[in-house]
Amino acid sequence: MMKITAAPDSFKGTVTSSEAGLAVISAFLDAAAERGEDPPETHTVVMADGGEGTTEALIAHGGEIVSLGVCGPDPGQRVGGFFGVTSGGEAVVELAAAAALPQSELRDPEKTTTYGVGQLISAALDRSPKKLILALGGSATNDGGCGMAAALGVRFLDESGIGFVPVGGTLGRIASIDMSGLDGRIKDIPVEVMCDVTSPLCGEKGAAAVFAPQKGASPEAVRRLDAGLMHLARVWSAAAGYDADEILSLPGGGAAGGCGAGAVIALGASLRPGADVVLDAAGFDGMLSGCDLVVTGEGKFDASSLSGKAVGAVARRCASKGVPCVVLAGQTEPTSADILRNAGITAVFSTQRAVISRDEIKARARDDIYETALNVARLFAV
Amino acid sequence: MMKITAAPDSFKGTVTSSEAGLAVISAFLDAAAERGEDPPETHTVVMADGGEGTTEALIAHGGEIVSLGVCGPDPGQRVGGFFGVTSGGEAVVELAAAAALPQSELRDPEKTTTYGVGQLISAALDRSPKKLILALGGSATNDGGCGMAAALGVRFLDESGIGFVPVGGTLGRIASIDMSGLDGRIKDIPVEVMCDVTSPLCGEKGAAAVFAPQKGASPEAVRRLDAGLMHLARVWSAAAGYDADEILSLPGGGAAGGCGAGAVIALGASLRPGADVVLDAAGFDGMLSGCDLVVTGEGKFDASSLSGKAVGAVARRCASKGVPCVVLAGQTEPTSADILRNAGITAVFSTQRAVISRDEIKARARDDIYETALNVARLFAV
Repeated sequence: MMKITAAPDSFKGTVTSSEAGLAVISAFLDAAAERGEDPPETHTVVMADGGEGTTEALIAHGGEIVSLGVCGPDPGQRVGGFFGVTSGGEAVVELAAAAALPQSELRDPEKTTTYGVGQLISAALDRSPKKLILALGGSATNDGGCGMAAALGVRFLDESGIGFVPVGGTLGRIASIDMSGLDGRIKDIPVEVMCDVTSPLCGEKGAAAVFAPQKGASPEAVRRLDAGLMHLARVWSAAAGYDADEILSLPGGGAAGGCGAGAVIALGASLRPGADVVLDAAGFDGMLSGCDLVVTGEGKFDASSLSGKAVGAVARRCASKGVPCVVLAGQTEPTSADILRNAGITAVFSTQRAVISRDEIKARARDDIYETALNVARLFAV
Repeated sequence: MMKITAAPDSFKGTVTSSEAGLAVISAFLDAAAERGEDPPETHTVVMADGGEGTTEALIAHGGEIVSLGVCGPDPGQRVGGFFGVTSGGEAVVELAAAAALPQSELRDPEKTTTYGVGQLISAALDRSPKKLILALGGSATNDGGCGMAAALGVRFLDESGIGFVPVGGTLGRIASIDMSGLDGRIKDIPVEVMCDVTSPLCGEKGAAAVFAPQKGASPEAVRRLDAGLMHLARVWSAAAGYDADEILSLPGGGAAGGCGAGAVIALGASLRPGADVVLDAAGFDGMLSGCDLVVTGEGKFDASSLSGKAVGAVARRCASKGVPCVVLAGQTEPTSADILRNAGITAVFSTQRAVISRDEIKARARDDIYETALNVARLFAV
């Protein structure tokens, strides 16, 4: 019996990952029916990049969402937060549930906090998960993860030895950090951070310089925030027994206003590309066993699709197992044969079926994915 | 060794059949090179529909073009005509070389003639061809092929027994027809007429009603032309020993201003879809022997592609030999699985690779065909 796996990313602005996956699977089932054959064994992976929707994607194959009120990004703000627990017993906390830019009315990364994220983690730990997945993306904050750590028991002290919860604008006031009160449960389980940027914590490619302006920071504020994160890295590394230079050079340390680095120091987390975390959570490698064809896809396919994004991650794993991998994309840039082969991609097909305007695309995008997948299935069956 | 045949129609307004075929073959050769495999055995068929360019298509696999001056469509006009002789010894005469609408300045189908077409046939017969292929398409005329027949020795007589060369406006003056002078060489060889319309000679779907207006006829002229063709059919059928009702009901009899019917009566021709004539001339059925995949295509693929057009003719022959057939098209309309299967089409892929305007299509059309074929080749190799 043929075995087909669909693992498309979302087609940005038109079709979700889940919708695209269903369209692909429907097409392969229909193609088998056309030939009067038994339906293929099918699997789908709902992809996510760590931003909004990541929890839903990770529990798509079983699990539950737990809702609770926590602190929002703005001072004194309360928001309706949530976390997920997969049927495999993994807790999923997304930063966007408690510290997202759309939640903030203030739009000032010198004042916003990730405290609510720590509260969600604390509540998730009450479920005794086997693993904690922390999804970073879309933050309103630049606090280096201090708020999150504080909610989990880390104490930040000023020169007078008085404890406070640092925000972006008060990182420079941290004189010492006391890790002794950190929630002990976090040390017993692996913590994986989904992280789709490679920015380091500080410097011209760092969290403040690259991301703070879109969170509302002026050029002067960016300079203050960058200096604050540098100060934090030195003090916190020393307190937690890390080498500061190692923390400062960590790709992804600057994710979510420095939350990437904060999660490494405070939670012992490993930073991983979001797509790999999702593929692992879905058991993708197991799906590849005996699989005849994998279909992935995204809105626009070009060389950047192969570094860190869902399509590249899916194809790389297909290549390692020798499974053919077809990419469907709304737009496709010609990509050299060497690059495709090295990436593990068998063939790339555009889902455009006609000359249409951008306005018309959305309404027919799902059907176009289905039609293209149907014809891939027909040709593949030869 | 893999064997691939490309037989695309032209992609109207963007890429010729020959260019499209080369793009497809290049793609399959490149795909084999990517895999480090021996190049496949490749064949191409240049398609044509009977209109301008048909001779070039038919001699694409070997042959020559012979030029000579003949009568044009307008009274007293001379044009530079030509005919083709394939390396297989078939003569190809296209009506568009001597009686085409673009050649006529008069634009009056009551006055234009196919006499020059008969002159071309006569010159072609001097080469002692094994077969004569007459390509109808794009005529300026409505003379029922009388001009053509007259140039080959048929005598049209009025009530006074005086011979004349009838044109559309004088068909009603034919009192009798003397076939005894017809060039005897025409009777010794098969004559195939490439004919892509199914219009009968007369009536509301006939030559005059459907095609004469675009040749310059007024509504009154259309009525006169239709009556003239009806009169011609009766007189000529009787003279040549045909049943007039059979001639009048012949699909394609109305092609090229009634030249279809005239060729049947005067030359004993068989009317055939142009694509089938081209496929036969190219030896397409032989190419299918041991062929792994045929790629055809056209600018726009929809249900009408399957009746009489190149794509439908190619696919039908593939089906009869059990060879998979993939269609590439600039635009594709969803077509039911039953229709595709019955037509012999394995899969349909659009060559659109991005969201672009109609203005941008032409410049990248060849590359888009190549890229799509390349990915079909990659998937097919799995």
